[in-house]
Amino acid sequence: MPMHDLIRQLKDLNKTKIVMLVADGLGGLPIEPGGKTELETAKTPNLDRLATEGTVGLSTPVAPGITPGSGPGHLGLFGFDPLENDIGRGVLEALGIGVEVGPKDVAIRGNFCTIDADGVVTDRRAGRIPTEVCEKLVEKLRAIKIEGVEVLVEPVREYRLVVRFRGEGLGDNVADTDPLATGLKTLEPKAGDPASEKTAKVAAEFLRQAKAILKDESPANFLMMRGFAKFPAIATMEEVYGLKSAAIAVYPMYRGLARLVGMTVVEPGKTLADQFEVAKAEWAKYDFFFIHYKYTDSTGEDGDFAKKVAMIEALDAEIPKLMGLKPDVLIVTGDHSTPSRMKSHSFHPVPLLIWAPATSRPDLVTTFGERPCLQGGLGHLLAKDIMPLAMAHANRLQKFGA
Amino acid sequence: MPMHDLIRQLKDLNKTKIVMLVADGLGGLPIEPGGKTELETAKTPNLDRLATEGTVGLSTPVAPGITPGSGPGHLGLFGFDPLENDIGRGVLEALGIGVEVGPKDVAIRGNFCTIDADGVVTDRRAGRIPTEVCEKLVEKLRAIKIEGVEVLVEPVREYRLVVRFRGEGLGDNVADTDPLATGLKTLEPKAGDPASEKTAKVAAEFLRQAKAILKDESPANFLMMRGFAKFPAIATMEEVYGLKSAAIAVYPMYRGLARLVGMTVVEPGKTLADQFEVAKAEWAKYDFFFIHYKYTDSTGEDGDFAKKVAMIEALDAEIPKLMGLKPDVLIVTGDHSTPSRMKSHSFHPVPLLIWAPATSRPDLVTTFGERPCLQGGLGHLLAKDIMPLAMAHANRLQKFGA
Repeated sequence: MPMHDLIRQLKDLNKTKIVMLVADGLGGLPIEPGGKTELETAKTPNLDRLATEGTVGLSTPVAPGITPGSGPGHLGLFGFDPLENDIGRGVLEALGIGVEVGPKDVAIRGNFCTIDADGVVTDRRAGRIPTEVCEKLVEKLRAIKIEGVEVLVEPVREYRLVVRFRGEGLGDNVADTDPLATGLKTLEPKAGDPASEKTAKVAAEFLRQAKAILKDESPANFLMMRGFAKFPAIATMEEVYGLKSAAIAVYPMYRGLARLVGMTVVEPGKTLADQFEVAKAEWAKYDFFFIHYKYTDSTGEDGDFAKKVAMIEALDAEIPKLMGLKPDVLIVTGDHSTPSRMKSHSFHPVPLLIWAPATSRPDLVTTFGERPCLQGGLGHLLAKDIMPLAMAHANRLQKFGA
Repeated sequence: MPMHDLIRQLKDLNKTKIVMLVADGLGGLPIEPGGKTELETAKTPNLDRLATEGTVGLSTPVAPGITPGSGPGHLGLFGFDPLENDIGRGVLEALGIGVEVGPKDVAIRGNFCTIDADGVVTDRRAGRIPTEVCEKLVEKLRAIKIEGVEVLVEPVREYRLVVRFRGEGLGDNVADTDPLATGLKTLEPKAGDPASEKTAKVAAEFLRQAKAILKDESPANFLMMRGFAKFPAIATMEEVYGLKSAAIAVYPMYRGLARLVGMTVVEPGKTLADQFEVAKAEWAKYDFFFIHYKYTDSTGEDGDFAKKVAMIEALDAEIPKLMGLKPDVLIVTGDHSTPSRMKSHSFHPVPLLIWAPATSRPDLVTTFGERPCLQGGLGHLLAKDIMPLAMAHANRLQKFGA
């Protein structure tokens, strides 16, 4: 039986509150062999106390060796198997810039390119035009009208943009128009199934009008479309877990991912302290709070070990505010590791802490860090196992079988 | 390839003996934060010696966060995936009171209720009549005769009873007759597929006769039927593992569960010492001995920490008798945790010990308890993984592939 079917059967409603605090890219690596990781280096008296009172372990976001993007990383944390719940590239790109994607929508990644007089691609990225130029061109493309669908065009960065079609009967099985090499013509958007014929026609019309609008521009005189994707058929947190869920995230991508699984996105303010204030204000209205903290990831991506340490310490310093809300279950973890040594997401397991005063079984761990978590009572688990554990600690799962 | 298919292919027969000693609800929690669990508190010199010589770990009965009933808990220990081998509620209820359920049977949970003159339910539990009244009413219901099936009615407790129909062609896809609220009439037993039509008719006839028999009783003047369930299509221990298996369990539920997977239920005596004596007497006749010890669970359910500690110590004291039989493989674990602090089954992983002098790889653990098991050589595993490990230690599995 699939785990979600089981959870739906067993889920129980009560007044408990679960908080999932996601420090993006939390896990790390030492700079020197045998040294300490960012989290191990940081002074984290508050997280250490939670580690002492609660139970720790290591979470593998998708599967051993797999480095997740933010999409699969967060889906795992929300208890959805990232291998079985694919979020299309177009949808992720749209969510990343705060474009809402709903059930009637197809989202597409676009990129400006340069074509010659015969329509042959001479530069697939149009000389990496600056974002300001991208914004100007997108503004022109907003003139495009197509009967029967609502068209939205938004700039992303440099030569990248997002196109969203909204309407009835729009499938997303449409082939990319990028020929993947210069010296070739762009491809027609071709439907891979009957349900996507309309989308292919709409895309072709969009490209026809775009070509006319852009014909005198340089170097970006056309665009290509990739990653046609519909809103994924994914259950909501309330359907699966019976949890009214709020997302308190500053960055659009995470708000979008939360919205995909039916969370209500509330205005987060700017700082983590703001986010905890928002949680306090919304405390009575929700059962589950997803609170996203970006800076452990961005500093890791920058390769700035010391800054990542500082960002972890800044997070730790705010923890007492969160504890003041008296959650029944608090989860602290990341969606993946971002070792500053690698300047990128990585596959390494992520430190995980589950604190639940009523039901935590203590282990011998008294600090929060990669090495201590190895000794933790949660052992190694998959990210998708965290939500069932949180539900259990919140006394929100009935007994299975008699 | 499903694990059972692999085991069936690789299984080998020899003269080794495997003993699985199940201390029901073994896992626990400390009373005070940071304190010791029941098992950690208990003085267990014999189990500690086995932990030192063998390998320990932690077993998750079904999946992280899932609290199992006795059925799924034991199926896991017997190596059957509890998520894929569902035992219906009626069957479990029957097994719990020692009613045998065989391949031609449908077992049903009944409960006495009160209806008014129009047949509307006014009390779904008939005022929770005492067990003595239930027994008296069940005695009357034994007069019910239905052509083509054998009918068995047995009291459970208070307003609850079990009905078993035995006959050819009895499917179990029949809807409950409980309207789930007072102020409504009871429902007709409706078949959900053609194979269950006969069962639905038989049930309707049973209810018709019962209504006549009970009409002048008060407050229990009718009954409702729930959880229609057939004997599950489940393989036997001998089919999967090639193990002739004996169950030595005092309580009916565990005898019944063992019988479901084809074990021979032998008379256990009353105490654990008796059970070990029985094992000794039957030693030559079986390859596998399931020995069930209830009192670690019942004291946990009672919330009696000290008593649970005492029951663990009592079990420990009998271990030398068991070791005298010189098993090749001894497993000591529980089917789930029952922390006395929670007074209920819980989802927490269960301490596990596998002792096999010929093949145990020692770890660094020298005591048996939740925290020490965290450091154990078996790590965290699912209960269904224990049987393959036991088979391997018993040298009963051939090499897979060349």
